[in-house]
Amino acid sequence: MFEDVETGATVAKDIYEQRVALLREELLAAQYDVLHAARFPVIVVVNGVDGANKSETVSLLTEWMDPRRIHTHALAEPTDEESERPPMWRFWQRLPKRGEMGVFFGSWHSHAILDRAARRIDRDGFELAQEENRRFEQMLVDEGALLVKLWFHLSKKAQHERLRALAADKKTAWRVTDEEWRRFESYDRYAKLSAKAIEATNTKSAPWLLIEGEDLRHASLTVGEALLAAMRLRLSVDERAARANASAKLQPKPEEKGKKPKRQAADADLILRSIDLTKRLEKKAYEKEILKWQRDLALLARDPGFASLSPVIVFEGMDAAGKGGAVRRVTQALDPRIYSIVPIAAPSDEERAQPYLWRFWRHVPGDGRVVMFDRSWYGRVLVERVEGFCSKTDYQRAYGEINDFEAQLARAGNVVVKLWLQVSLEEQLRRFRERETIAWKRFKIGPDDWRNREKWPLYEVAASEMILKTSTEHAPWTLVPAEDKYFARVKILRTIVEAVEDAM
Amino acid sequence: MFEDVETGATVAKDIYEQRVALLREELLAAQYDVLHAARFPVIVVVNGVDGANKSETVSLLTEWMDPRRIHTHALAEPTDEESERPPMWRFWQRLPKRGEMGVFFGSWHSHAILDRAARRIDRDGFELAQEENRRFEQMLVDEGALLVKLWFHLSKKAQHERLRALAADKKTAWRVTDEEWRRFESYDRYAKLSAKAIEATNTKSAPWLLIEGEDLRHASLTVGEALLAAMRLRLSVDERAARANASAKLQPKPEEKGKKPKRQAADADLILRSIDLTKRLEKKAYEKEILKWQRDLALLARDPGFASLSPVIVFEGMDAAGKGGAVRRVTQALDPRIYSIVPIAAPSDEERAQPYLWRFWRHVPGDGRVVMFDRSWYGRVLVERVEGFCSKTDYQRAYGEINDFEAQLARAGNVVVKLWLQVSLEEQLRRFRERETIAWKRFKIGPDDWRNREKWPLYEVAASEMILKTSTEHAPWTLVPAEDKYFARVKILRTIVEAVEDAM
Repeated sequence: MFEDVETGATVAKDIYEQRVALLREELLAAQYDVLHAARFPVIVVVNGVDGANKSETVSLLTEWMDPRRIHTHALAEPTDEESERPPMWRFWQRLPKRGEMGVFFGSWHSHAILDRAARRIDRDGFELAQEENRRFEQMLVDEGALLVKLWFHLSKKAQHERLRALAADKKTAWRVTDEEWRRFESYDRYAKLSAKAIEATNTKSAPWLLIEGEDLRHASLTVGEALLAAMRLRLSVDERAARANASAKLQPKPEEKGKKPKRQAADADLILRSIDLTKRLEKKAYEKEILKWQRDLALLARDPGFASLSPVIVFEGMDAAGKGGAVRRVTQALDPRIYSIVPIAAPSDEERAQPYLWRFWRHVPGDGRVVMFDRSWYGRVLVERVEGFCSKTDYQRAYGEINDFEAQLARAGNVVVKLWLQVSLEEQLRRFRERETIAWKRFKIGPDDWRNREKWPLYEVAASEMILKTSTEHAPWTLVPAEDKYFARVKILRTIVEAVEDAM
Repeated sequence: MFEDVETGATVAKDIYEQRVALLREELLAAQYDVLHAARFPVIVVVNGVDGANKSETVSLLTEWMDPRRIHTHALAEPTDEESERPPMWRFWQRLPKRGEMGVFFGSWHSHAILDRAARRIDRDGFELAQEENRRFEQMLVDEGALLVKLWFHLSKKAQHERLRALAADKKTAWRVTDEEWRRFESYDRYAKLSAKAIEATNTKSAPWLLIEGEDLRHASLTVGEALLAAMRLRLSVDERAARANASAKLQPKPEEKGKKPKRQAADADLILRSIDLTKRLEKKAYEKEILKWQRDLALLARDPGFASLSPVIVFEGMDAAGKGGAVRRVTQALDPRIYSIVPIAAPSDEERAQPYLWRFWRHVPGDGRVVMFDRSWYGRVLVERVEGFCSKTDYQRAYGEINDFEAQLARAGNVVVKLWLQVSLEEQLRRFRERETIAWKRFKIGPDDWRNREKWPLYEVAASEMILKTSTEHAPWTLVPAEDKYFARVKILRTIVEAVEDAM
């Protein structure tokens, strides 16, 4: 495939200058349009062979556009905070927000190629990495990002000449180390692996642009024009969509009132209905049991093996199902210095300017820490679905994105525990009323809770579908009958202890 | 001083349970009031001797209150990202936002005591650290934080007994390592240093509470009640202030129109007026000079010694003084992989929930990186002062806070370069008009710019005072005549190069 771009194309200096004079104005204007619209981030991926004018091209881009809105990332060896987390964490931390441009040198594509070349991973590992990268990029695009993927190529001969020239020049000799020469010696192997990676991740929504990197003028013009075209196309698509949207609002809506209600899933189909809410535990038995499991958890948390397990515990469930109390029974067993609790409410504006899962990735725990999410990324397929805060497309693709996220956690060694706490409609009512009457519980109840209660059947459907679609081997759901708090708390402690034990 | 708390006080179990039953309700209510008001963060500092029930007490606090809004931090050895930055960076990263509670085990007080005990710093270094801590805490309080500082004490005898008891119990033996015993052997030395640190940082706005840590019931009740009192007092102060404010708004304002304008500083007093705006450079000389300084900077950035210098470069100046163009001339000299540009505009909501300087601390560069601020923390004493976005008290104390911040950067090895770009009122007008007519510059001009221009004399006063008050030895201002862009750009490049060279 690389032969196609080995054209030896060059651009004469005067032609180049004419074209750049125009291009830079247009690029700058497009960049500001993107910035002011602030509807999508531009993510530029820069990969390719050594000496193919990658950084020179990016330098020119930053010169042509406003460098203050371009964030360039060249990730070297992972720092210790990074190596304690899944490999993609470092990229998530650096995603540009809507309106801005992020340039990733090397990017998520480099790891697999380098690892496979050095035989640190086998063929299957390489394939898996491609699949993951494809899914990651699909997620970025689905979340609205404009993704521009650049592969800078040099023929073997051209790379040899280029490295020799760089090494011979005092000013650039530092760029050609033994490492570069070693990679050059494996040129053919790298070329083969690169071609495989490109083919595997060359999708309609995130295609690769191959660039011959021999001539800087040719390369930078090609890249600049491609980037301009991509930004313009996207801006015009968005604009048309906005116009269509605006005129749709002027049209009278098709009559909805007369519509028959959609056939609800049969009760029997709802997995939530299968939860046995009669489960109970006497106070005496509870006090004995909870202490036992708390002690077990406390001991496990002190085990040297715990450091690599860094549990991620998700609490979801109907309102007033007892999530807060359950969280507290878990924290009682843990040294306050090792856990964090992340209560999920409305996102901040920094979070809203990022892909949906970004706000959860930022809390992924480091070694030896426990993170408990009080509500979680499942908000998208629960409250956002029921309330119509996101489209059906959005929540339908969320199942796959969530599974990918949890798979990455599990592969990085995190124990993922997901708990669904279920109460009956009657018990919820009783607890709501109790909250209204007991002084120090009054903060826990408001109009939102009563509104959500009215949508109970919709939540049942949403939660049931969620459980079916996101119960995976590495991150299964545990259904917790929470009609009786004692029973629920013991079951939760026990589930966590057993998950940690299994992982050890 | 510690003898005062060595009372051997204990609390009987039944009394304790009665008092806790009441206390926990009140603590929870106060916590929710703080959370809902979201006007200030609660920062709890936990220091003291080993075995004095510190973590046990915090465990109880999290049990009594809602643990989801308490963030506990026990900072061990700095990670590599932390050790590349000033020592206070790790605390800044973890400050709780308004409405939430952050508990710091060890905190900023531990370092100096441990370092001095191990003789890693001398007496002056210890004194300096106390001064810094005092100023840091004053800043937190001035920024609105409720600071509760707890020192857990044990007599030598009591600590010995406690460590022996912990070591003898299988469940707690892991907590008593050689390190704890080593520290115990130096009990007297630690006690003396601790007393000094406490005295030095026991201020009216951030006093220490000494607690005898022998009896957990006594310690936890003391702490719980102190925390409750502190939260309530603060809430009621805020409420009274809000009421006073509301009634003040109802009163007719004293006539302001008839007021004489305040005496403006005499022109001669304004340091800005001393800048020689006639400085010019011919295009030919410019092209030669700029290349020379860019080459020098490029070479310096590749020097191994550069890694520890991580320059922080601040661009400030009148609108249209050429900051953007100057930034671009600097970036041309640098590999895009090593620099970041931080354009400062309105803060995000996460930033607004933190002390003023937080949004700048988060961008402090790691080793070998260059960060350029296009506008900066000086916004407080410039635009916020002129526009009345902050009170006079706020901007007056900002000078000292900014000097402290920059001193910390300088001490951590960062080269701090601060550039003020000055143009004349006439030249600004010419550039504004140019921006309005040239297509790709139209984004750079808006109604705000014209409004700011009307306030030119106020900006002159503010900038002049700023330059006088924040030109320090470690972070001096460089005044750049920017009437002629060529001259300005060369001067800027040269200033940066020379600052880096001096630091090497």
